[in-house]
Amino acid sequence: MIVKRVKTGIPGMDEILYGGIPERNVVLLSGGPGTGKTIFSQQYLWYGLQHGEPGIYVALEEHPVQVRRNMLQFGWDVRKYEKKGMFAIIDAFTGGIGEAAKREKYVVRDPTDVHMLIDVIKEAIRDTGAKRGAVDSVSTLYLTKPVVARSVVMNLKRVLSGLGVTSILVSQVSATERGFGGPGVEHAADGIIRMDLDEYDGELYRSLIVWKMRGTKHDMRRHPFDITDKGIIVYYDKVLRIRGGRAYIEPLPEKVVKEMEEAAKKTEDVFGEEEE
Amino acid sequence: MIVKRVKTGIPGMDEILYGGIPERNVVLLSGGPGTGKTIFSQQYLWYGLQHGEPGIYVALEEHPVQVRRNMLQFGWDVRKYEKKGMFAIIDAFTGGIGEAAKREKYVVRDPTDVHMLIDVIKEAIRDTGAKRGAVDSVSTLYLTKPVVARSVVMNLKRVLSGLGVTSILVSQVSATERGFGGPGVEHAADGIIRMDLDEYDGELYRSLIVWKMRGTKHDMRRHPFDITDKGIIVYYDKVLRIRGGRAYIEPLPEKVVKEMEEAAKKTEDVFGEEEE
Amino acid sequence: MIVKRVKTGIPGMDEILYGGIPERNVVLLSGGPGTGKTIFSQQYLWYGLQHGEPGIYVALEEHPVQVRRNMLQFGWDVRKYEKKGMFAIIDAFTGGIGEAAKREKYVVRDPTDVHMLIDVIKEAIRDTGAKRGAVDSVSTLYLTKPVVARSVVMNLKRVLSGLGVTSILVSQVSATERGFGGPGVEHAADGIIRMDLDEYDGELYRSLIVWKMRGTKHDMRRHPFDITDKGIIVYYDKVLRIRGGRAYIEPLPEKVVKEMEEAAKKTEDVFGEEEE
Amino acid sequence: MIVKRVKTGIPGMDEILYGGIPERNVVLLSGGPGTGKTIFSQQYLWYGLQHGEPGIYVALEEHPVQVRRNMLQFGWDVRKYEKKGMFAIIDAFTGGIGEAAKREKYVVRDPTDVHMLIDVIKEAIRDTGAKRGAVDSVSTLYLTKPVVARSVVMNLKRVLSGLGVTSILVSQVSATERGFGGPGVEHAADGIIRMDLDEYDGELYRSLIVWKMRGTKHDMRRHPFDITDKGIIVYYDKVLRIRGGRAYIEPLPEKVVKEMEEAAKKTEDVFGEEEE
Amino acid sequence: MIVKRVKTGIPGMDEILYGGIPERNVVLLSGGPGTGKTIFSQQYLWYGLQHGEPGIYVALEEHPVQVRRNMLQFGWDVRKYEKKGMFAIIDAFTGGIGEAAKREKYVVRDPTDVHMLIDVIKEAIRDTGAKRGAVDSVSTLYLTKPVVARSVVMNLKRVLSGLGVTSILVSQVSATERGFGGPGVEHAADGIIRMDLDEYDGELYRSLIVWKMRGTKHDMRRHPFDITDKGIIVYYDKVLRIRGGRAYIEPLPEKVVKEMEEAAKKTEDVFGEEEE
Amino acid sequence: MIVKRVKTGIPGMDEILYGGIPERNVVLLSGGPGTGKTIFSQQYLWYGLQHGEPGIYVALEEHPVQVRRNMLQFGWDVRKYEKKGMFAIIDAFTGGIGEAAKREKYVVRDPTDVHMLIDVIKEAIRDTGAKRGAVDSVSTLYLTKPVVARSVVMNLKRVLSGLGVTSILVSQVSATERGFGGPGVEHAADGIIRMDLDEYDGELYRSLIVWKMRGTKHDMRRHPFDITDKGIIVYYDKVLRIRGGRAYIEPLPEKVVKEMEEAAKKTEDVFGEEEE
Repeated sequence: MIVKRVKTGIPGMDEILYGGIPERNVVLLSGGPGTGKTIFSQQYLWYGLQHGEPGIYVALEEHPVQVRRNMLQFGWDVRKYEKKGMFAIIDAFTGGIGEAAKREKYVVRDPTDVHMLIDVIKEAIRDTGAKRGAVDSVSTLYLTKPVVARSVVMNLKRVLSGLGVTSILVSQVSATERGFGGPGVEHAADGIIRMDLDEYDGELYRSLIVWKMRGTKHDMRRHPFDITDKGIIVYYDKVLRIRGGRAYIEPLPEKVVKEMEEAAKKTEDVFGEEEE
Repeated sequence: MIVKRVKTGIPGMDEILYGGIPERNVVLLSGGPGTGKTIFSQQYLWYGLQHGEPGIYVALEEHPVQVRRNMLQFGWDVRKYEKKGMFAIIDAFTGGIGEAAKREKYVVRDPTDVHMLIDVIKEAIRDTGAKRGAVDSVSTLYLTKPVVARSVVMNLKRVLSGLGVTSILVSQVSATERGFGGPGVEHAADGIIRMDLDEYDGELYRSLIVWKMRGTKHDMRRHPFDITDKGIIVYYDKVLRIRGGRAYIEPLPEKVVKEMEEAAKKTEDVFGEEEE
Repeated sequence: MIVKRVKTGIPGMDEILYGGIPERNVVLLSGGPGTGKTIFSQQYLWYGLQHGEPGIYVALEEHPVQVRRNMLQFGWDVRKYEKKGMFAIIDAFTGGIGEAAKREKYVVRDPTDVHMLIDVIKEAIRDTGAKRGAVDSVSTLYLTKPVVARSVVMNLKRVLSGLGVTSILVSQVSATERGFGGPGVEHAADGIIRMDLDEYDGELYRSLIVWKMRGTKHDMRRHPFDITDKGIIVYYDKVLRIRGGRAYIEPLPEKVVKEMEEAAKKTEDVFGEEEE
Repeated sequence: MIVKRVKTGIPGMDEILYGGIPERNVVLLSGGPGTGKTIFSQQYLWYGLQHGEPGIYVALEEHPVQVRRNMLQFGWDVRKYEKKGMFAIIDAFTGGIGEAAKREKYVVRDPTDVHMLIDVIKEAIRDTGAKRGAVDSVSTLYLTKPVVARSVVMNLKRVLSGLGVTSILVSQVSATERGFGGPGVEHAADGIIRMDLDEYDGELYRSLIVWKMRGTKHDMRRHPFDITDKGIIVYYDKVLRIRGGRAYIEPLPEKVVKEMEEAAKKTEDVFGEEEE
Repeated sequence: MIVKRVKTGIPGMDEILYGGIPERNVVLLSGGPGTGKTIFSQQYLWYGLQHGEPGIYVALEEHPVQVRRNMLQFGWDVRKYEKKGMFAIIDAFTGGIGEAAKREKYVVRDPTDVHMLIDVIKEAIRDTGAKRGAVDSVSTLYLTKPVVARSVVMNLKRVLSGLGVTSILVSQVSATERGFGGPGVEHAADGIIRMDLDEYDGELYRSLIVWKMRGTKHDMRRHPFDITDKGIIVYYDKVLRIRGGRAYIEPLPEKVVKEMEEAAKKTEDVFGEEEE
Repeated sequence: MIVKRVKTGIPGMDEILYGGIPERNVVLLSGGPGTGKTIFSQQYLWYGLQHGEPGIYVALEEHPVQVRRNMLQFGWDVRKYEKKGMFAIIDAFTGGIGEAAKREKYVVRDPTDVHMLIDVIKEAIRDTGAKRGAVDSVSTLYLTKPVVARSVVMNLKRVLSGLGVTSILVSQVSATERGFGGPGVEHAADGIIRMDLDEYDGELYRSLIVWKMRGTKHDMRRHPFDITDKGIIVYYDKVLRIRGGRAYIEPLPEKVVKEMEEAAKKTEDVFGEEEE
């Protein structure tokens, strides 16, 4: 059995993931407000487009027009890929209402209807041949009905993974919440990446940690990162440690860094033959 | 794509924001009682009026007459701008009941009806050509129905941002609450500014921190501020640090201060051409 | 615009408030059981009576007969002022049932009916020409229905402030609660004074802190106070600090004390002319 | 106005209360399981009987037969006082069911009916001429309906205080709860005595503290106490302090002890003449 | 009045209880999963059987067949006592369904019906002449209906204590819960023994503490204990202390140990003559 | 009575369990997301298959096809054992919908129907002669209905233990939750193994601890473990200790290690003759 790796393309991230996200994994990208989850997921898609891998973006929080604008601010102009049929923004925000919305190709008329949403996602994946996907955010789908959270995530997982898409589900948690979005959601995901923005000693620090990633070894440290005008840069060679209420950013031993750099080059894993 | 900056006009604040609030952003101004949120939002509007930018103020907590009085105490006499049609107070407080209320131009008969509220806001924005807005407070709109919080904020965001208004949504949190008003609200906002009033070692300290601001770099430190009889002054060149239960106000390195002062002069950002 | 100051008459308190409570303010007096909130509010009213300012007391927790008894224990014999028509106790406790209750002039038949309560308050204010008011406690009005808390406080604020009364709303919080009575209430008040009774190192300490006060500068420190047989005395020249679980009462610098003493003499503030 | 003091008769307790409980006060005796609340209330009643003051005990937790047995274990044989008509146990436990219950004089057929309970209490007070009362426990009356807690306590207070009884309301809180029984109850009481049983460094310590007591000065320290085969003994001359997770029992300065001992002799307080 | 002591027979436990459990007491045995509550209650019953005191065991968590097996693992073969009519297992687990269940003598057809349960308990007590009882666990009876917890415990107490049985009610609390099973239950019991299993510094420690025991003095320290293949052994001569997150097992002073050893010999207490 | 031990086959785990899991025990395997619970339960089953013991796996979280894939990644190719009739995957995930699902032999049409689930489990156990079982996860069965948690676990326990299967119930808890899945579930299990993934000083650490195991002594320390490409390896000779927010992995004394190694060889325990 051969499992391919999907490169995130986010500088430093593939080092932490020892080569990238195993294909078909559904990764929960969890964090509070302002942590950079949306940028992460868009940068992941953009890298795919730049390297010939089609993708879809499910917009539940922003108008598709705004999504394009936001990406453009980082220099990620997705219009040309939309025109080529390599990229699709699924409008699950406007309900198809408004002039701009009428120009969108993939519209979910009733975003509270998960089945309708999934039908449009399927259509977009088939049209584009998407290999990468992002849902921003899944939390919106169950914010007022937490009891359906797990089944929503399971449904998305089934279709995304089933159609060969390696995807990121953005999970919004409150600024003060330590979990990843509740037990039903956390356990259903193949991977969890946690992004944090925390105040220590009067300053805000950005960091991320890979909590789990099915099918691969990954670095288990908390790494600082920056949001620049080119997107996110993760310092895979540094660790953020908190001691006595203060944050310290320390370099990792050279050997550890080397191992990550080597592993980042991996593009697939081979497992014992499957008989099926 | 050119994104203009809207100056807050609050001394020290534009330094922290590296030039001001990116145009059309909807900023959540979150804080406990007595932190100065109302003053901040009114000072922001007043600065606009002084510099030729019309504005609207949605009064959900106070009688419009009281709003004018309160502003006057800081020397901000908005009556002349109301007469010129540059400023509008939207009365979402009285329900149109009372003698004084009858003299108001923009009245929301039923403040619990968000659609009615939004219609009046639209009208006021069009009449005044408002570039700045403040809603004081959004919390009132969902205090007894937290489940609608996100949709209320999304609706306001759509109309304010859509009509070109750069706005502040005042979010009231309890004195002991660490979050910004709940996950639905926090993630929907383009920016979050947190104002705090905390007791350390028997004394109250005022401070603020910019938690997120879409479309711009911003300082990531907690700054002390004062409320004077001229309004708020933020000490962008100082940081408030808590160690062992005591508060320390420390100066920032000169280089950092310089960078902020330089950035504060910025009035717009240019991004890669948008094709649309 | 001229805003007058209402002296609390509580020794040390006007120093902390830099001259007293700005006229028409509605002040939330928040604290746990046994902190002295009732005594504070009654002492405030008694000082007014002694200086020619009529007042009303809304009794929601005690029988009016008991209220008079309690005040008498501090030497505050209000009967003569009631006879002169300068003072009114509004009986929102008995429902008019009982012999003693029949002798009361201002009775709210159904204390759960806020509108009826407000009508009786209005009547008492008009009859006495009240300048000062106390509601003891507002918490009783929404104890079993927290969802109406804000609207109750807003309604009271409208009538009290509207009729020119400077008032104290007693807010009962649980002995272990850090807040002031919930977000709806905390933000609706013009001022918040917190009274505390806390155990440190095996002893109970009394202290108070002014959390906010619209329309005036105020001292921002936690001051110790005593309850004597003459009422409350606040040590405006001392601060209570907690370090390592122990309480320390420390003197303030002479300069700070002087400033408070000077300010305490203020009786009004003048703001820029209002055009209205 | 003369307010008499009711001696608790519990060794050390009247010292802490500077002479006893002011007459007609309703005192909340709050504590977790095993703290000694029931013993305290029974010892209080027994002392009254020994000194010619009739009393009533409302049994909500135990069979009246068991109450007599329990008191007997401390040598408090109440049967003779019951025969003399000086003491009454109100059976609000059995509902009148069972052979033993049929021999009881004061039975509340439906203990969930507060009005019926109050009628029986009134009858017992009138029959015995009770000056002292204990309700063990009030918590039982609202355990499954916390929303009625305050009104239950208010009703009891009205009848007990109104009929001249100085009473103790036992309030059961959970072993881990820091409060006294909820805001409605805490504020309604004239006094609060807190009894505690806490583990420090592997050992259980008993202590009590008077949190509030209307109408009298009282010591504000946490005192250790023991339960002996003669009842409770409070060490008014010692204080229990917790430092670094360990408990320390320290003696109080002689002067402080003297003052308490002097005050303990007080039997009444005289306040300025009441005109009524 | 003579109150006899019931020996627990658990090595070290009667020392801590200064002679055993006072007759007819209903003791809450509270603890998290894996703390040894079931073993404690079975060992208590087994000791009685060995010394001629009949007993009953109410099985709510396990099949009676499994109960016998579990006891057998400690060498406690109860079958012979069942045959002699000295011991009864009340099957409140199977509902009488299954082949093995049909062979049981005491079966509660509907374990959710407390009155039916109590009838079977009464029958078993009368048949066996039981002096000891254990209910494992009472928590099961109100797990899904916490509001009935107190009345369930009161009902059990009435019948067990009323029929002369000294009993243990096993109370299951969550692994992270500090209380004993809620206020209603904690206060209703005559005694509370808390069993704990806690992790300190990477190791699990077993300890127990007697929180209250009506009718007797008891040691008030936390004692370590072991579960061996002969049952529980409590180290009454040692105390478990936690300092700085680490556990220390320290010996008690010889004098204290002696006192406990002396007291452990007590078999009854004599109180002042009861007149009844 | 002879109780056999079931070897987990997970390197290091049988040492900690002093020989393995006592036969017929139902073990709760509790942990947050990413802790390795699924791998543990699959490795346990695989070891059985390798040593001639048939097993069943109840798939509630993953498609059976995915389960086989996941196991294959560790080199555990279960297809041959399925063909031999020694292993069964019970599909309680797909509801029988989908092409692949149609090829499954054991399908639960309605996974929300616990009785239907149990019928299929019974069938699979009988067909395979299963000695080992895993339910992944039980939490799914009551995620949206916590009130039924205990009865679900009791029902599973009855059938699994009753049919001679030694089984693991995977219990999913939130990343921030300290308990094992709620009181009803924790107390119903015969054993509890807790798997943890926690961040200390910027790094994630894996560890497990055996909280309880009916019928055997077990090591009571927290042991670090790794997830390798061959499965889980537990360091039974090391302990993970947390001091001052940092993790330390320390070796155990040689004597302790020896004792575990000796005990690991045990295959059964003999208890006193049972008469039945």
